[in-house]
Amino acid sequence: MFLGAKKRTLSVLGSTGSIGVNALNVISVCPDRFTVRYLTAGRNATLLIEQARQYRPQAVAIADESQYRMLKENLSGQDIEILAGKQAIIELASRGDVDLVINAIVGMAGLEPTYRAFRAGRDVALSNKESLVMAGEIIMNLVKDKGLNLYPIDSEHSAIWQCLVGEDQKNIKRLILTGSGGPFRTRPLAEFDKITPAEALRHPTWTMGKKITIDSATMMNKGLEVIEAYWLFGVRPEQIEVLIHPQSIIHSMVEFCDGSIKAQMGLPDMRLPIQYAIGYPERLPKAWESVDWAKIGHLTFENPEPVKFPALRIANEALRCGGTAPALMNVVNELAVYAFLENRITFPQITGMIETALSKIPIINKPSLEDILNVEPVAREFMASIIDNERK
Amino acid sequence: MFLGAKKRTLSVLGSTGSIGVNALNVISVCPDRFTVRYLTAGRNATLLIEQARQYRPQAVAIADESQYRMLKENLSGQDIEILAGKQAIIELASRGDVDLVINAIVGMAGLEPTYRAFRAGRDVALSNKESLVMAGEIIMNLVKDKGLNLYPIDSEHSAIWQCLVGEDQKNIKRLILTGSGGPFRTRPLAEFDKITPAEALRHPTWTMGKKITIDSATMMNKGLEVIEAYWLFGVRPEQIEVLIHPQSIIHSMVEFCDGSIKAQMGLPDMRLPIQYAIGYPERLPKAWESVDWAKIGHLTFENPEPVKFPALRIANEALRCGGTAPALMNVVNELAVYAFLENRITFPQITGMIETALSKIPIINKPSLEDILNVEPVAREFMASIIDNERK
Repeated sequence: MFLGAKKRTLSVLGSTGSIGVNALNVISVCPDRFTVRYLTAGRNATLLIEQARQYRPQAVAIADESQYRMLKENLSGQDIEILAGKQAIIELASRGDVDLVINAIVGMAGLEPTYRAFRAGRDVALSNKESLVMAGEIIMNLVKDKGLNLYPIDSEHSAIWQCLVGEDQKNIKRLILTGSGGPFRTRPLAEFDKITPAEALRHPTWTMGKKITIDSATMMNKGLEVIEAYWLFGVRPEQIEVLIHPQSIIHSMVEFCDGSIKAQMGLPDMRLPIQYAIGYPERLPKAWESVDWAKIGHLTFENPEPVKFPALRIANEALRCGGTAPALMNVVNELAVYAFLENRITFPQITGMIETALSKIPIINKPSLEDILNVEPVAREFMASIIDNERK
Repeated sequence: MFLGAKKRTLSVLGSTGSIGVNALNVISVCPDRFTVRYLTAGRNATLLIEQARQYRPQAVAIADESQYRMLKENLSGQDIEILAGKQAIIELASRGDVDLVINAIVGMAGLEPTYRAFRAGRDVALSNKESLVMAGEIIMNLVKDKGLNLYPIDSEHSAIWQCLVGEDQKNIKRLILTGSGGPFRTRPLAEFDKITPAEALRHPTWTMGKKITIDSATMMNKGLEVIEAYWLFGVRPEQIEVLIHPQSIIHSMVEFCDGSIKAQMGLPDMRLPIQYAIGYPERLPKAWESVDWAKIGHLTFENPEPVKFPALRIANEALRCGGTAPALMNVVNELAVYAFLENRITFPQITGMIETALSKIPIINKPSLEDILNVEPVAREFMASIIDNERK
């Protein structure tokens, strides 16, 4: 069916995370379409070694330098270049001899690789929503100026993108981002103080990495997605709505100026949006499990609860504030999520700390990339001080 | 927004029916985009006169010749040409000085006007599904040979068309036609004998004309739509599925080769698909009422019940049989629906008579248009004989 179609050469940044593993899974079922040139990981050397043996990349990099030796030993004689350290990740992201960079890095660490890949003139299939949340204006201007493509991998944004194929972006009336509501949709607010990391990691519909699973539980994930959608689809903030849809079958919707609504649906399986992003403009004829409508029986919808889940309001405020506000929100959220996972703060404190940070730390307007990258050390210091204070 | 867009000149065939009235409603809210040149009606002279006064067409035609005089008297001095009789409808459908013909004629009477409009080299916005059910191959070949466009108005086919914009038709895995299930979805089969026309005319979600409302009650409407979809979208019969969705919010869906599903949704309002068909490729910025998702709360799905509703199976068999079988099915259905509305036969006899006709009347393969048009007198005679027999 795709005779003669060019084989795409890919980098997979963050290959050992949930999206990275799924991306390699998609690549391995279409071996005639894709070849992997670079793999990068954060800390998981064991899995990176296994992947390197299977996919035979030219080079691999691991962020955690302490694991360089293990990589080197286990991949000796394989003719694979081995690099380590954060700069090595950025360096591999910048190499221009690939057709497409898949950025599946988790969190703020993904921003610079996204930026560098575009600077190198590469298209990017982006799972790292934090890149757009933190530096949406800089990234999108770079994409536009260089005539490149940013293909979203997030299931919601993939859904909107699929609904917009063949449509005119100026006809968008509103984007409806759906979300499952997470594991605490029906739990009373009074019990939120007692939420444990283990409970928060039990997502009702999606199997994902830890960071995004906690973000789903606080609904900050949906807040980040609102900002991501803002940058990707050129709409006004008030045109982006969030709708709770616990079954996660409708991945998102677009309402057009005539009232017609288009939705993209499927079972919750990240391989579908990954495959769409890396195969675009083709739909690769590898079908993942089909929806059995009569078996599903019903789809339900409800509005988000703003008091229980303040993250959506916070994200909307940060988006409207602009400057470094979304970056600050994102960094504090990320640090707070890991603090929660380590039992250092409570579940409601995650969003509480974000609000405190946004009210206390000065926002820089029209920030440079350096300004944005500098948010991290400032936020870290702030977080350390308030977590310390609360413990005293 | 549409400055400089050319104003489209339209014929509205069947302007006094439910779709015709809605089409004029859409046209009247976009007076800068559309002008009406011809109107035709079956019997409703009173409404046709009113419409002629409002839309100032060049000519009007009424099928029922006995009403010519009334038209003439009421529209004298208005500089409107007045025609009557079935041939006059066909003649107006053939006039080449319009940009688009809207065929909203009900039933088999719509076939020749569709054919003649295409023969005259006009694009057609088609609500008359019977044209494709009866003569799909002839019509679609004509459209292809002449490089014309057929824009479906049926909400299900409009939904599929909207989902396919920007997509490659060869990537369709299956089409999922949704249907409300009609007013008797939950009624036990044992009580079907006692169904009255008044009950069958109470559709749960859509306000439509009598013929299609009864077709919805028997689910023959969905059977006709399966055949219509077969001709419109170039799929195999086994790629078309029917799903019961009582809320009529999802108007239909397309599943692609990668398992991704796209759906088009909206409140059940025929003005939306009409506006899309006559405005295509633009979406006119006139929004009908929006869906309030949280208020709707849930959407449900179930499989059709083949024993209670044999129409779907019958339509599938007629489609696979080919030749004049779908035309015969359609004609007998139409005659049976009117016989039911006149209390001459019971509700289950509608589909019963179709099965009898299909088993008794010879099917012609590779029929000409004449062969297809000749199905009507043959079927009429057959129907008269069996209704007579049953009365004796």
